[in-house]
Formats: sequence, C-alpha cells, structure tokens
Amino acid sequence: MELNPIGIIRTPFKTKKECPIQPVYAKASLGQVTVFPEFAPGLKDIDTFSHIYLLYALDRAGKIELQRPTFLDDTPHGIYASRHPCRPNSIGMSIVELVNIQGATLTIKGIDVLDRTPLLDIKPYIPKFDCFPEASEGWTTDKAWQGKPAGRE
Amino acid sequence: MELNPIGIIRTPFKTKKECPIQPVYAKASLGQVTVFPEFAPGLKDIDTFSHIYLLYALDRAGKIELQRPTFLDDTPHGIYASRHPCRPNSIGMSIVELVNIQGATLTIKGIDVLDRTPLLDIKPYIPKFDCFPEASEGWTTDKAWQGKPAGRE
Repeated sequence: MELNPIGIIRTPFKTKKECPIQPVYAKASLGQVTVFPEFAPGLKDIDTFSHIYLLYALDRAGKIELQRPTFLDDTPHGIYASRHPCRPNSIGMSIVELVNIQGATLTIKGIDVLDRTPLLDIKPYIPKFDCFPEASEGWTTDKAWQGKPAGRE
Repeated sequence: MELNPIGIIRTPFKTKKECPIQPVYAKASLGQVTVFPEFAPGLKDIDTFSHIYLLYALDRAGKIELQRPTFLDDTPHGIYASRHPCRPNSIGMSIVELVNIQGATLTIKGIDVLDRTPLLDIKPYIPKFDCFPEASEGWTTDKAWQGKPAGRE
C-alpha cells in the first residue's frame, strides 16, 4: 500500500530533543497544517470541529524496535502497547485543537511532531465516537513523562 | 511511503451493507485481530489496556471523493471533515475494546470494519492523551446514523 503526503505540518520543533511526546504535553504549542491545493476541497466543514486527528509519516523515526523502553519508564514495552515512533508502518497520530483556518492552512494547538512532518490524513475528532473516559490507562497509569535523556530519542 | 500489513482483522461483516459505520454503532460486534508472528513481540503489555486503536487499510473503499454525502446526512462534506472511507491515503481508524488475548490473537469488541481487513498498526488508547469530552461534535451534532440506503456504501 503506497501513501503520499497530502500536506505538511509546520511546528516549532526542529529536533527530536525539542519535541514533546504527546499533544497533552504540548498544549501551548502552535503549528500550521498546510494541505496541498489538490486536496483543499476535502477541508469543507472542517471548521465546524474544535479538535481533529492528524495522521502523518514518522519520517525521522529510528529503526524499528518491537520492544523498547519509552519516554514514560525504563521497562521495555511492546511497540503496540506504546506510541513510540520506532514502529513498523510508521504512521503517527496526534489529536490537536483547531484554532483557525485560512484557505488550506489550519492553525493548530497542542502539536507534538517535528517541523515539516508529511501529513497523510485528517479526521474529525468526534467525542461520541472517540471519547472513552472509562478506558484504562494500562501500564501508563501514574507514569509521568521523564523528559528525554540522551539515547532515548 | 510503503506500508505492509502486520496482521488481519476478522469480523462478522462480509459486505459493506452489513458493516456499521462507527465502533459505537457496533458495540456488541466481536472480532479477532491476528498479528503476524514476526510482529507478535510488539504486543507485550497490550493486555494492560482496555481499549486500543486499530489502524487499517480501507482496501475495499470506492474511488476517492473529496466532498461527498456521508451516512449521517445528505449534505456533501469535505472528506477531512468526515470518516468516510473514500479518501486519499485510505487509512481507517477504529477504537475498540480489548476483550481477550490468546497468543497473537486479540478478541475485540465494537469493531466496524469488513472481514479480512489488513491491519497496519495498533496503538493503545490512553484517556489522558485521547479523551477530549469538551471537543465539539461539529456538523455531526444531533445527527444519527441514517442506515445505508443503496448507493451510499
């Protein structure tokens, strides 16, 4: 299955070291999503949503590791029990707040990806489909982001 | 960017007509996700989560339409303001409940995809990252699933 970028995500994060690990740790971070002109008609009515999913290529992820420590603790976890970028089929996903739209450029808040990340898809975040407050936090319960020590990028 | 399946999703839905449009409309639907043996080590600790995201190939979607009516109303919406399958980069996403794991086979509840859908990725659903009850429902506010009249598949 071959995917091609539909746009680009611009963020303040030029290096992995600067980059937060999840949108919730990047609440104040503003970014821009620019959708390429040929896909711009697909944005109709997106302005009715306050939050959107971005799917993007983790184009600067390291080599695939099926089990590895994460940014939350030092225990190796399976990659499918983790959001770590070093995964087979390197698709990343972030939920961000939609602040503003001008033409085919969306200003977004709470973005946690590297600058110039290739955008693959946008989906509306719809609480009645997407919000499960009763879900467990799994092994991440009570874990806080450790920051990014050397070698953990 | 080239993606390859990491497993397969088995569901009771052999045809588009049988298939619910969102996991919330498929609450009782049980399915199985089988991860191919070479990726099975990536499942470590997934059993600590109650809910997971499945990313998959919308391998039987119709041709791309950047604006089109959906299953919720008759007004054309932009594909990026919709979850409709007829999208560029045909990646689908569902949040499902994880019922049980045996080896590399996960029994899941609330699945809304066609039988034998190619699995691309699994990510844990983590409420502190993924639950935004304050998000707007956008144009879907007060809309209910219309069912699937002919020609709307």
